[in-house]
Amino acid sequence: MSETGTVMAAEIAEQPVAWSRLLEGGRSDAVRVAQAVRSASPRFVLFAARGTSDSAALYARYLCETVLGLPCGSVSPSTVTVYGARPDLRDVLLVAVSQSGGSPDLVETTSVARECGALTLAVTNTGDSDLARAADLHLDVMAGPEKAVAATKTYTAELLALWLLVDAWRGGDGSRADVLPELGSALLESCAPEVGVLAARLRFADTLLTTGRGYSYPSAVEAALKLTETTYVPARAWSGADLLHGPLAAVDADTPVLAAAGSRRGAEALVDVLERVRGRGGDVSVVGPATGAAGAPALTLPDVDEELAPLLEILPLQLLCLEMARARGLDPDAPRGLAKVTRTR
Amino acid sequence: MSETGTVMAAEIAEQPVAWSRLLEGGRSDAVRVAQAVRSASPRFVLFAARGTSDSAALYARYLCETVLGLPCGSVSPSTVTVYGARPDLRDVLLVAVSQSGGSPDLVETTSVARECGALTLAVTNTGDSDLARAADLHLDVMAGPEKAVAATKTYTAELLALWLLVDAWRGGDGSRADVLPELGSALLESCAPEVGVLAARLRFADTLLTTGRGYSYPSAVEAALKLTETTYVPARAWSGADLLHGPLAAVDADTPVLAAAGSRRGAEALVDVLERVRGRGGDVSVVGPATGAAGAPALTLPDVDEELAPLLEILPLQLLCLEMARARGLDPDAPRGLAKVTRTR
Repeated sequence: MSETGTVMAAEIAEQPVAWSRLLEGGRSDAVRVAQAVRSASPRFVLFAARGTSDSAALYARYLCETVLGLPCGSVSPSTVTVYGARPDLRDVLLVAVSQSGGSPDLVETTSVARECGALTLAVTNTGDSDLARAADLHLDVMAGPEKAVAATKTYTAELLALWLLVDAWRGGDGSRADVLPELGSALLESCAPEVGVLAARLRFADTLLTTGRGYSYPSAVEAALKLTETTYVPARAWSGADLLHGPLAAVDADTPVLAAAGSRRGAEALVDVLERVRGRGGDVSVVGPATGAAGAPALTLPDVDEELAPLLEILPLQLLCLEMARARGLDPDAPRGLAKVTRTR
Repeated sequence: MSETGTVMAAEIAEQPVAWSRLLEGGRSDAVRVAQAVRSASPRFVLFAARGTSDSAALYARYLCETVLGLPCGSVSPSTVTVYGARPDLRDVLLVAVSQSGGSPDLVETTSVARECGALTLAVTNTGDSDLARAADLHLDVMAGPEKAVAATKTYTAELLALWLLVDAWRGGDGSRADVLPELGSALLESCAPEVGVLAARLRFADTLLTTGRGYSYPSAVEAALKLTETTYVPARAWSGADLLHGPLAAVDADTPVLAAAGSRRGAEALVDVLERVRGRGGDVSVVGPATGAAGAPALTLPDVDEELAPLLEILPLQLLCLEMARARGLDPDAPRGLAKVTRTR
């Protein structure tokens, strides 16, 4: 059998280059959009997204709440598309995040939000898309054409574009992200043996649980989604705190737990949670820095600015999905029942 | 072996009586709180909750967006408790929902929100709680002491209290809910044989997927949580639309799918989704009205006002959790590793 998942593998590897492109070519765009947003002085930020882009939107929610002190929410497109809601959205910035910019429910949600008074921003990998046209403002994540069904490079490009926007919004120059391409390249290389060991160890898992807190919770959510679509192992993400409110009962010695510990405060906040999980016999694999509070990592990350850690910590997790799918004889480039652009209403 | 889950069973059965108590004793309180909220004219509603109460908060989000046209969000307590965020919350109503009112992160989130300018409302089953004291306003869901670790009656009491609040807010008199106790009692009786059949059929499932759209999505989320904590079967809820953006790949003939079809528009919006799931060989069991658009139900609901359907559709799903747990030789009154009040920070 020839090697499967070559398209996904190539796009995972491409990420540091895509980030460099965005850092060079997209910074002025982020500044321009940030200026337009600042002059509108929104008081609330709403996000609309599906699938992997929704994991990126979740990251942006933490950023806006923590860095900008703005209350945030996620739109349920069905309130608009199914129930015909027409909310009062003055002083609201609506950010629609979508790789393709093609899903009709996001386009309709954005159009309706604009009619209802929101300032609307589309963050897409496709400038020539219905979503970009429907919104007042557009940010291109510049990841280049994505061919794999399992989105990888558009995910981290969305994270970076959203971080650049928020950083410009607070008056930063985006330079804190300049370290990312080099750190990403080094990590993709250094983590390969660890990924191989972990993929072999999880080869026969029939369920998986992911967890994280703060900025790392979106990484846990995205890892669970990617695992589910590429390996077909039902994976479920719980925020560290929510895990203790019920799902902990389902953890036993047969439950592999992947903990995205990110960096610093997110990792510290996870210590108690992991203690409880280990106390139930759960098999915990930490993704985090070598000296992190959450314990010795199975997948080692460089110690980095916690706002930016999510871009790095997803890399070994993407590779883990690829290797687990291969180990199970699956082709992650051709997940059953999925198309690249999902059109929901 | 004596019968397990007797406490949970008793509390499931108690729900129609608890609703009657709230409809009689709690309506004036809902009106009083609604008046206070209306005179503050909030422009944005944020919810803070964990576990089962978060499923109730999700329902309230759909209500506020659809009925009141107010943009809504969910607070991530970690932005406040872990990262020290101090957002600008003027014109915001923060609603904290908690059975016990005892979780420190919710108390801190509520206190900080109040300092930051939000009007704060605690919805709890325990008036004498830190959360009720931390908030400007308090709504008691009047479910009476809940002894089972798996929350059932406090969930639907939270739903009803939140519906009464929103209904009073829009100027209603709450009378549309008067049919619920009778419908609930009849349903608990009529669904028992169907629940028995379905529990037997799902006896050996090693994973479960739940889905729903609109008002029924919170039912899918709550059912997945309750299944996980009582039967230890890892269950995962996806909104109908999100399911098509990735997780559909994990569906095969061994995947039981529970679809909460609710009523009317929510059910119609699910038709396409279920067609795709069935096309992948998924074993779909619908919870919905006999003549619903989503197809012949495995668990039959009365046809009811779609805003109120979530109170009814969770009843057979709670019983299903109980019966599946019993069939697996587990005691749902004593889930592994859980305590009644979960204290997270």
